[in-house]
Amino acid sequence: MSRVVKLAVIPGDGIGPEVIAEAEKVLDAATAASGIRFDKTHFSLGAGRFLETGDTLTDADLVSIAAHDAILLGAVGGVPGDPRLKDANIERGLLLRLRFELDHYVNLRPSKLYPGVPGPLAEPGDIDFVVVREGTEGPYVGNGGSIRRGTPHEVANETSVNTAFGVERVVRYAFDLAERRGKKVTLVHKTNVLVHAGGIWKRIVDAVSAEHPDVAVDYLHVDAATIFLVTNPGRFDVIVTDNLFGDILTDLAGAVTGGIGLAASGNINPDGAFPSMFEPVHGSAPDIAGQQKADPTAAILSTALLLDHLGLHGESLAVTRAVEADIADRGSASRTTAQIGDDIVARLRA
Amino acid sequence: MSRVVKLAVIPGDGIGPEVIAEAEKVLDAATAASGIRFDKTHFSLGAGRFLETGDTLTDADLVSIAAHDAILLGAVGGVPGDPRLKDANIERGLLLRLRFELDHYVNLRPSKLYPGVPGPLAEPGDIDFVVVREGTEGPYVGNGGSIRRGTPHEVANETSVNTAFGVERVVRYAFDLAERRGKKVTLVHKTNVLVHAGGIWKRIVDAVSAEHPDVAVDYLHVDAATIFLVTNPGRFDVIVTDNLFGDILTDLAGAVTGGIGLAASGNINPDGAFPSMFEPVHGSAPDIAGQQKADPTAAILSTALLLDHLGLHGESLAVTRAVEADIADRGSASRTTAQIGDDIVARLRA
Ligand SMILES: CC(C)[C@H](C(=O)O)[C@@H](O)C(=O)O
Ligand SMILES: CC(C)[C@H](C(=O)O)[C@@H](O)C(=O)O
Repeated sequence: MSRVVKLAVIPGDGIGPEVIAEAEKVLDAATAASGIRFDKTHFSLGAGRFLETGDTLTDADLVSIAAHDAILLGAVGGVPGDPRLKDANIERGLLLRLRFELDHYVNLRPSKLYPGVPGPLAEPGDIDFVVVREGTEGPYVGNGGSIRRGTPHEVANETSVNTAFGVERVVRYAFDLAERRGKKVTLVHKTNVLVHAGGIWKRIVDAVSAEHPDVAVDYLHVDAATIFLVTNPGRFDVIVTDNLFGDILTDLAGAVTGGIGLAASGNINPDGAFPSMFEPVHGSAPDIAGQQKADPTAAILSTALLLDHLGLHGESLAVTRAVEADIADRGSASRTTAQIGDDIVARLRA
Repeated sequence: MSRVVKLAVIPGDGIGPEVIAEAEKVLDAATAASGIRFDKTHFSLGAGRFLETGDTLTDADLVSIAAHDAILLGAVGGVPGDPRLKDANIERGLLLRLRFELDHYVNLRPSKLYPGVPGPLAEPGDIDFVVVREGTEGPYVGNGGSIRRGTPHEVANETSVNTAFGVERVVRYAFDLAERRGKKVTLVHKTNVLVHAGGIWKRIVDAVSAEHPDVAVDYLHVDAATIFLVTNPGRFDVIVTDNLFGDILTDLAGAVTGGIGLAASGNINPDGAFPSMFEPVHGSAPDIAGQQKADPTAAILSTALLLDHLGLHGESLAVTRAVEADIADRGSASRTTAQIGDDIVARLRA
């Protein structure tokens, strides 16, 4: 079988290009034997591009990216406080715009504590859960504004928008995923305070849950969920939550499983109408950029999610296994970004 | 000197009455020598009252509570899933109504890891910070609604409202507090996504910070803040943040400092126009109610905050010291709620 996958690659800023170089090596190595070829187009996007041209993401970029089968993204964002970026919002204008325009309604973020990885918890237990974060609505929609800005009478509003359409599809995805995993879904929200936004989530989870009698469901307020993430993370299987709570919980989850240097994510359009986008959860870390200090593991694990999404389950598993073996064998010797990539490639070839 | 303090006591539901009984003992013991007398009025409010009368908080309750010098609250909330409470919202109708109507714009939540307390972190380091959580606006205002409710076309909105008036006063409080502590303020928000709500916070912090050249300021996105709370909580001194982020961060902070059984809080109206309200951060825990299993320490530490607010700094310090000594001497023997209260009272008398 020979198959060509059109892959848009957005290395981005900071450590993005370094970790993406390793992810690309791994993708190629993982698929070499199966006759899959990645036809890659690199897009120069991020703070670097903004500083050069003033563009964040042009309509032409978007059309061109959307014509691919999948997207691999490193990290975007310039040096914090850079005055030249004061009026840029790379996050909203690039990353969130891609997620919204390409209808990435499932932001999939697995959390797993790999044997051998040191984390902050004294007794972490067995951590293996997935956060299904809604990706296209909630407090992230950008519906807000302010009046009398900069005066003592300023009022600034920000509206969370939640639709039955948007909530139901991501909740269905979470239940389907739970059917293939530990058969447990935990809804996280703040229904006692955000009664409108929380109400629609609770009612839809209850309705979809009735169609999955073998999946256990529970509910946690977001504040309580953070407690469980540090005291009993083993209680979670699939967490389904809104865009903002998902953002918060997955950074915390990354920390308890040994750091966001290992946390992978997929921005998925399950319908296939648009290409899905895979990226490490970490940011561009400009402070260590260009020094071969970044751990490419999160980017590499993101390619495992990408392969899985493309239906290449064997190849995906091979990447995950190679990463697991690499992590288990990590000594105290420090390796460069490229060395880690090379080591994982060597395991894949073995 | 003789002084009478009119104290409204709201024991509430579940373990509330048990922990408040101990807090009252401690208050009396701590002030016995100084000639302060607490003239207490007990208010029956919470799920229990709702089930009996259908009332959550009547206007008459509110007027009567507002006529006191301070409020001590245990915890409110019935058994989760109780069908009789389906249409009650005790949290919004009682707790949040008190915070909003009594203009408790500073929700003060200290986090300290006491020597001898086991927590979930392997290497917690020295934890001692205070979260200054805004208490009267943000996503908690209840401005929202839904259309086409229960249909596939439902849209549910929830608006965060942030005013210069509301943000500035709490930010000023945080800087004043930092001046008396470690001289560092960390603003936590999500300015890169919530550009309107985040923008007003950032601009006001920058402006107030200019008046406090000796206080260091930094900014963290809420997701990154949760990472630091588990990897480097020692980096924080005063955190200032909005109502929702403050809710999330303080539960997590409670967990990393050994559990919310120890976390105290004050809902403060610094202007003195309304009585301030002191309560443990924990909930009503109906599952262990009436069994003398609850730890009254958070409620007792809340009385230390109350004493401090009343200007009784020596008495406040005595309570804190007694609690610290009690915690340091805790063996593995389990004590009843009343025994812990009695032990702390004995230390105060010694
Ligand atoms: C960079 C930022 C906009 C983004 C988010 O909030 O979604 C990031 O934190 C993430 O989790 O991918
Ligand atoms: C009970 C609930 C409304 C409350 C809040 O969200 O403020 C609680 O979680 C708290 O932190 O005091």
